[in-house]
Amino acid sequence: MTDAALPVTPAPLFNTAVVAGVGLIGGSVALGLRQRFLARRVVGLDASMDVLREAEALGVVDEVRATPGEWLREADLVVLAAPMRALEGLARELAPLLNPAALVTDVGSVKSGIAAEMERLGVRQFVAGHPMAGSERGGVSHARAALLENAVWVLTPTDHTPLTALSRARALVEHLGAAPVVMPPGAHDDLVATVSHLPYLASLALTHMVARDERLSLLAAGGFRDLTRVASGDPRMSRDMVVENRAALRGALARFRQQLGRLEADLDDPEELLAAAHEGKRTRDSLPVVRRSLLPQKHDLVVAVPDRPNQIGAVTQALGAAGVNIKDIEVLAIREEGGALRLGLESPEEVGRAAALLRAEGFEVRGRS
Amino acid sequence: MTDAALPVTPAPLFNTAVVAGVGLIGGSVALGLRQRFLARRVVGLDASMDVLREAEALGVVDEVRATPGEWLREADLVVLAAPMRALEGLARELAPLLNPAALVTDVGSVKSGIAAEMERLGVRQFVAGHPMAGSERGGVSHARAALLENAVWVLTPTDHTPLTALSRARALVEHLGAAPVVMPPGAHDDLVATVSHLPYLASLALTHMVARDERLSLLAAGGFRDLTRVASGDPRMSRDMVVENRAALRGALARFRQQLGRLEADLDDPEELLAAAHEGKRTRDSLPVVRRSLLPQKHDLVVAVPDRPNQIGAVTQALGAAGVNIKDIEVLAIREEGGALRLGLESPEEVGRAAALLRAEGFEVRGRS
Repeated sequence: MTDAALPVTPAPLFNTAVVAGVGLIGGSVALGLRQRFLARRVVGLDASMDVLREAEALGVVDEVRATPGEWLREADLVVLAAPMRALEGLARELAPLLNPAALVTDVGSVKSGIAAEMERLGVRQFVAGHPMAGSERGGVSHARAALLENAVWVLTPTDHTPLTALSRARALVEHLGAAPVVMPPGAHDDLVATVSHLPYLASLALTHMVARDERLSLLAAGGFRDLTRVASGDPRMSRDMVVENRAALRGALARFRQQLGRLEADLDDPEELLAAAHEGKRTRDSLPVVRRSLLPQKHDLVVAVPDRPNQIGAVTQALGAAGVNIKDIEVLAIREEGGALRLGLESPEEVGRAAALLRAEGFEVRGRS
Repeated sequence: MTDAALPVTPAPLFNTAVVAGVGLIGGSVALGLRQRFLARRVVGLDASMDVLREAEALGVVDEVRATPGEWLREADLVVLAAPMRALEGLARELAPLLNPAALVTDVGSVKSGIAAEMERLGVRQFVAGHPMAGSERGGVSHARAALLENAVWVLTPTDHTPLTALSRARALVEHLGAAPVVMPPGAHDDLVATVSHLPYLASLALTHMVARDERLSLLAAGGFRDLTRVASGDPRMSRDMVVENRAALRGALARFRQQLGRLEADLDDPEELLAAAHEGKRTRDSLPVVRRSLLPQKHDLVVAVPDRPNQIGAVTQALGAAGVNIKDIEVLAIREEGGALRLGLESPEEVGRAAALLRAEGFEVRGRS
């Protein structure tokens, strides 16, 4: 979301926002609160003095606190952003100190447990949340307000959640530039078990097969690397995530085995397998693209790039000199299109103009199929 | 591989090379043979006149033929590059017409069947091959000699393959710029079942789970898209590939289920699961990178890019103006590092120079961890 498209905020939504746990996500929330003027002051609470010092040095928060205390009563927003394994303990520690009027939320990737715990603790103005903005690189040093922009941010109210709390949580998410999606905690956990935790386990299983036969890594490139990228994330965070959601994950595993079994049976029914392959392609090609590119990419141009020095510079300079705004750029996999650059431009007109410019420079150009 | 590093070829390796089946791979082989002066003439044989016309128009081949015949006797190299399902039929059709001295090879992704068939047909100078250079985009129009450069190209001789044939096949592969890897047909089929065919089936199973619940596609981004990219390939080619290799694939599926079962059991043994997560990350991070980037990338620099127009142009122009050669460029996933560009440069010195230049322009720069 560009600033122009931001909701107008006449006054800050919150006076004192506390982010408890200043890592990648907590730090990004804090930065978003500050950069978008959503809180008059942002306090970072973390057990690690090193983290607090870094957060302060990076301008992620206005103030830092190493221990909870009466000062928490001032907070009208509390964001629990501790690692999964520490989240419920943190909730129990802070609950007695919170202002009953404060909006409380969390950013964990599994929701049933924390939602139930907060109800036990009697924190009524709580809405569990999950910004789907993961990363292979954790820590406050990688925190960016942009991490949350355009991210799907699931909010999981229970039957007991006050509508006032839900609407305040929704406003917070929208003002941070993310897209709120509301569903019950259990539904969320089932969905992420399928789209996130099962894929992690599957890619882990694939990497283990390779680890058990060195010859495999020789041939394991391209598709196999894509397929196992999620196995490259932080091991402890990934482990905690799947363990916390193991009940839903077991259900997803059972459905996955069913689908695999169907496909294995279809190895003897080529027509059915072909239909399955078509269906899979249709589904996959229709998935939303949010991972790549800084801005929504609509108007693409592909430029064939000979395997010679400085071709990328030649392309971007030819366009830059003519004032063509390159919104996104990608070196297409050489195994997919030969050496080629994909350029994301602003309009069909810009695509036409860029194509003409590049052809004049002797480049081979085509719109992407 | 850059031209400087190419093996020296005093005279063409072959007089008349015939590429039977002028698609993505066949066309890329033909282009490689021509561009690297490996054959005095390259003849394209294909049942489709449209394909032949396109191949001729694109300069992929010197001559085209729509039907086999006595003319094949002139060939001292015959590359069978028809789709999997047509490969053995093509072999049976051409075998009686081949010059016994001609080197014959194929480029199919499964090797046991064709190797056995060629022995039955008595084609002695045959070496089955598999250039591991797939693509989502098929057809001669996407053919590029570069598609084969640095690709692993498996050669699978049998106990009866003459050493002369193997050495000629190895020379062909090396002169095309690829990296020959020799192993028996059965070993190849087991390995690709694990690194290629099983991952395809697994990602197909995952996409089918999403297809059965529309809500899932809302959350299915990032890792899930990576994981299912291989499901986006040509359905018929993918289907034929896994059906042809179904015996080995069933073995890989059994091992995959074992690994999945271990991991599911480890959901109740967090320490063991953590070890598994570490092992998976170690293995995955050690996989060879051949898919991305036009040239081997050693010296990376990451530039934080604010979500504003023309930042990419600003970065590349600042470097281009100073004569810094950008060998590779990638928009890092905004969910991984905030908006950022990864630049692949030529040397540590260039990285230092580029970093200084960009900092002077007000960009935040860091070396990639």
